[in-house]
Amino acid sequence: MKLTIYDTTLRDGTQGEGMSLSLDDKLKLAKRLDEFGVHYIEGGWPGSNPKDMDFFREVKKLKLGHAVVAAFGSTRRANIKVTQDDNLAKILETKTKAATIFGKTWDFHVREVLKTTLEENLNMIFESVEYLKSKGLEVIYDAEHFFDGYKANPKYALDTLQAASKAGAVYLVLCDTNGGTLPAEVCSIISGIRKKIKTPLGIHCHNDCNLGVANSVAAVEAGALQVQGTINGYGERCGNANLTSVIPVLVLKLGIPVVSAKKLTELTELSRYVTEVCNMPLERNQPFVGKSAFAHKGGVHVNAMVKNARTYEHIDPKLVGNATRFLVSELSGKSNVLLKAKELKLDLNNETPETRKILEKVRELENQGYQFEAAEASFDLLMRRIMGKEKKFFAVQECRIHDEPLADRDVTSHPTVKIQTPDKKTRTTEAQGKGPVDALYNALREVLIQYYSIIQDIHLIDYKVRVINESAGTAAKVRVFITFRDEKDTWTTVGVSENIIEASWQALVEAIEYKLLKGEKI
Amino acid sequence: MKLTIYDTTLRDGTQGEGMSLSLDDKLKLAKRLDEFGVHYIEGGWPGSNPKDMDFFREVKKLKLGHAVVAAFGSTRRANIKVTQDDNLAKILETKTKAATIFGKTWDFHVREVLKTTLEENLNMIFESVEYLKSKGLEVIYDAEHFFDGYKANPKYALDTLQAASKAGAVYLVLCDTNGGTLPAEVCSIISGIRKKIKTPLGIHCHNDCNLGVANSVAAVEAGALQVQGTINGYGERCGNANLTSVIPVLVLKLGIPVVSAKKLTELTELSRYVTEVCNMPLERNQPFVGKSAFAHKGGVHVNAMVKNARTYEHIDPKLVGNATRFLVSELSGKSNVLLKAKELKLDLNNETPETRKILEKVRELENQGYQFEAAEASFDLLMRRIMGKEKKFFAVQECRIHDEPLADRDVTSHPTVKIQTPDKKTRTTEAQGKGPVDALYNALREVLIQYYSIIQDIHLIDYKVRVINESAGTAAKVRVFITFRDEKDTWTTVGVSENIIEASWQALVEAIEYKLLKGEKI
Repeated sequence: MKLTIYDTTLRDGTQGEGMSLSLDDKLKLAKRLDEFGVHYIEGGWPGSNPKDMDFFREVKKLKLGHAVVAAFGSTRRANIKVTQDDNLAKILETKTKAATIFGKTWDFHVREVLKTTLEENLNMIFESVEYLKSKGLEVIYDAEHFFDGYKANPKYALDTLQAASKAGAVYLVLCDTNGGTLPAEVCSIISGIRKKIKTPLGIHCHNDCNLGVANSVAAVEAGALQVQGTINGYGERCGNANLTSVIPVLVLKLGIPVVSAKKLTELTELSRYVTEVCNMPLERNQPFVGKSAFAHKGGVHVNAMVKNARTYEHIDPKLVGNATRFLVSELSGKSNVLLKAKELKLDLNNETPETRKILEKVRELENQGYQFEAAEASFDLLMRRIMGKEKKFFAVQECRIHDEPLADRDVTSHPTVKIQTPDKKTRTTEAQGKGPVDALYNALREVLIQYYSIIQDIHLIDYKVRVINESAGTAAKVRVFITFRDEKDTWTTVGVSENIIEASWQALVEAIEYKLLKGEKI
Repeated sequence: MKLTIYDTTLRDGTQGEGMSLSLDDKLKLAKRLDEFGVHYIEGGWPGSNPKDMDFFREVKKLKLGHAVVAAFGSTRRANIKVTQDDNLAKILETKTKAATIFGKTWDFHVREVLKTTLEENLNMIFESVEYLKSKGLEVIYDAEHFFDGYKANPKYALDTLQAASKAGAVYLVLCDTNGGTLPAEVCSIISGIRKKIKTPLGIHCHNDCNLGVANSVAAVEAGALQVQGTINGYGERCGNANLTSVIPVLVLKLGIPVVSAKKLTELTELSRYVTEVCNMPLERNQPFVGKSAFAHKGGVHVNAMVKNARTYEHIDPKLVGNATRFLVSELSGKSNVLLKAKELKLDLNNETPETRKILEKVRELENQGYQFEAAEASFDLLMRRIMGKEKKFFAVQECRIHDEPLADRDVTSHPTVKIQTPDKKTRTTEAQGKGPVDALYNALREVLIQYYSIIQDIHLIDYKVRVINESAGTAAKVRVFITFRDEKDTWTTVGVSENIIEASWQALVEAIEYKLLKGEKI
């Protein structure tokens, strides 16, 4: 039997702080997860969230090619018949092929939370699984708090699994619900159970000890045949087992082809797509898929990487669709600057005096609060400026913003921008916008588009502000990163000032300059 | 022999993307790490970074009470004498008690990077360790790429350890430099080596497979006596083993008292202090110490938590200085709102009609882009407003901002703010500020301070902006979070608008209202 990947981003993932998905978001994610090749997609909990019922209706229209969609719920309530249980009725109403229901393993939970007898809990498990199965569903049984329950009362924990197994569950999924179990325990407990139970086991881990991935891998090594988790590890508290780490470890380290090598190269894109749809912050240092995952900064490492990439990379980043990057910062040596120049196709070598000048300028600006590691477009422009290869597409001579009535909460900003255009004329423009950054962008664009039609297709996609010297209060400096994209690329620029508008303006001007420069190069 | 914790936040941590520490930052961190009780603090690499030499001079003046400060460097270069090596000379110049030097384990690296013979590499290790020891230093030997080297050529890898051991190293630290090793491998390799080598072993892991913590724990279980890592897992690429996870796992799960129970309760504060000094983004879902680490959102979990906290928490958060939180969002049930009300000491129960109204309002505002999970002060004000318990301390009638010349990069903002004061007068004030948010704050403060002296001691400590609907480009809505603190608390408020100034203004006004409300309650 083959190992399957069960994604619960749409259900357990949404329990994470800051996560909130619309119906449209959920459908987009389901489509993408299916294309990537996960085996199961847990769509939601119809008994707890009315929005989820809409999802099950709409997802059928997508005609997924690969994944089975599962509806989530719990075993029936105590002391009623399965046919009387609303929650099970809602699962049937979704008309999905598979259902995942969770039940209690830990005697403490049966008494304290369910407030029923150990015997009745076994009946609840058996009857609920049997009922859904009798209606033609593939039933996956999630044994909640399995490891805690097993440590407290192994015999009873096993009885709950046996109940689900006898009733015909296709997987018995062992959940480390509170995330407090260690890999060695996972391994020894699963090895013990496998001798007593024939139904395939699954694993569902949380990351409360930073061991969610390790516990999932340990479970597979001990014989588990299904791994449950979420993309980027989203989920309640510290999140669920991160599938964007689990999957490449399974494929590349253990040689278990849960997805094809070709699909694996889409992993980084998948992770970023999910981040975007979920509107969550990008985790730069995320293993395998993060922007920093293969980013080298230390001079020694960069030096060695030039000789052979294997020296400081445990895999070829291309295998997961990621790429090597070399960072430039005040800690960098010349190697970093030279490599970056090579990346940017600029003519620079160890002997060029500009190499040192660039390093010095980077150190000076980083002291002022700039950061170029994340703003490579600004660094590109900086290098060209120091090498005397700057191209002046336009010059800003003056810029003012007028009157913003704020109290009525319906605001328009009116900037006046005076620009020297490529034909050496001075043009003054007044534009409007929702907020000052938008207004400034509109003013700039209005003039420049007459000279450079290529700026038509660019869009701002991210705008981030961070206070630098927090102790200065509201007078503190801020660092603004602005990210634009066109049809092919995305690029980020940086601005720093005590004034947020001024910092945004710096980044905005550089973002447009960079686009024009890119246009030039073609 | 007791297990020791070796912190390398100041050295390996600074290799992380976006990390940049001043001398002052490094000294602050060293002081705090010492107070917390780590056994070793790696201060820097004097041979590679001149700033690090200043650190070793200044750190002596701090008179640390507990930790040994170590200087980092490499074995001597090939084919020279130890006395001719700059890097070793710089280590001696620091006059620290301990030195940590790394050498090559992997035959591939000796050939490809050092470009020398396997024999000469053994000499380099032996002589470098012996030399520093002869000068009275405690020498820790870092075996770079140990696991990769051992898998490629176990005999040679062992020879390198033997060389350092014979020369008198106090620890042989096995480094998973590229972060590609699995816990089961770490365990079996260390168990094998321990039979052949008597010198205590240490472990130094990277997180490239999301297994940095698991590998460190596996090494300790297999007998390692030193764990190296960084606070918050900062470090190159995906970071180093995260000590804020490793330490509580060792203490609370394995019963190894690497720090006292009392010190452990300072872990969360330590993590946030380091985040702040390093000016890195707060990782909310970080195990043990994150703001979300014990935050409950799902209705079922919140319900059970009310009955017994052990049901969904693997440890008591107080043990690591963290706290349980209940989140309110569109997914919440009444339990969440009621618990929150209890936390805020507001009189609300299941029957109160306001409970449903609050839930509906939260859903409506979250649809518009607000988020209350991270802005609890705004949520507090919202609840009071709906319950008719709002207190109007002041009312803003009008607010304008004038002219901001931007092109000369020296900007002052001039807002005019018209406020109805507590004595029902209308006061108009014009203030100045560096940037519009600062100017608005100054204007508001100027008037209000005459009525409410308690706003004297509040300071803005964080200001975050995020684009909500990115597809709208520069006209997109932004969400602003503003965090203030006074002597006792910190509190966060939220504002949403298409205009960044307007959104900031909303959050600013609520932050001050909240402070006034807090003052009232006392």
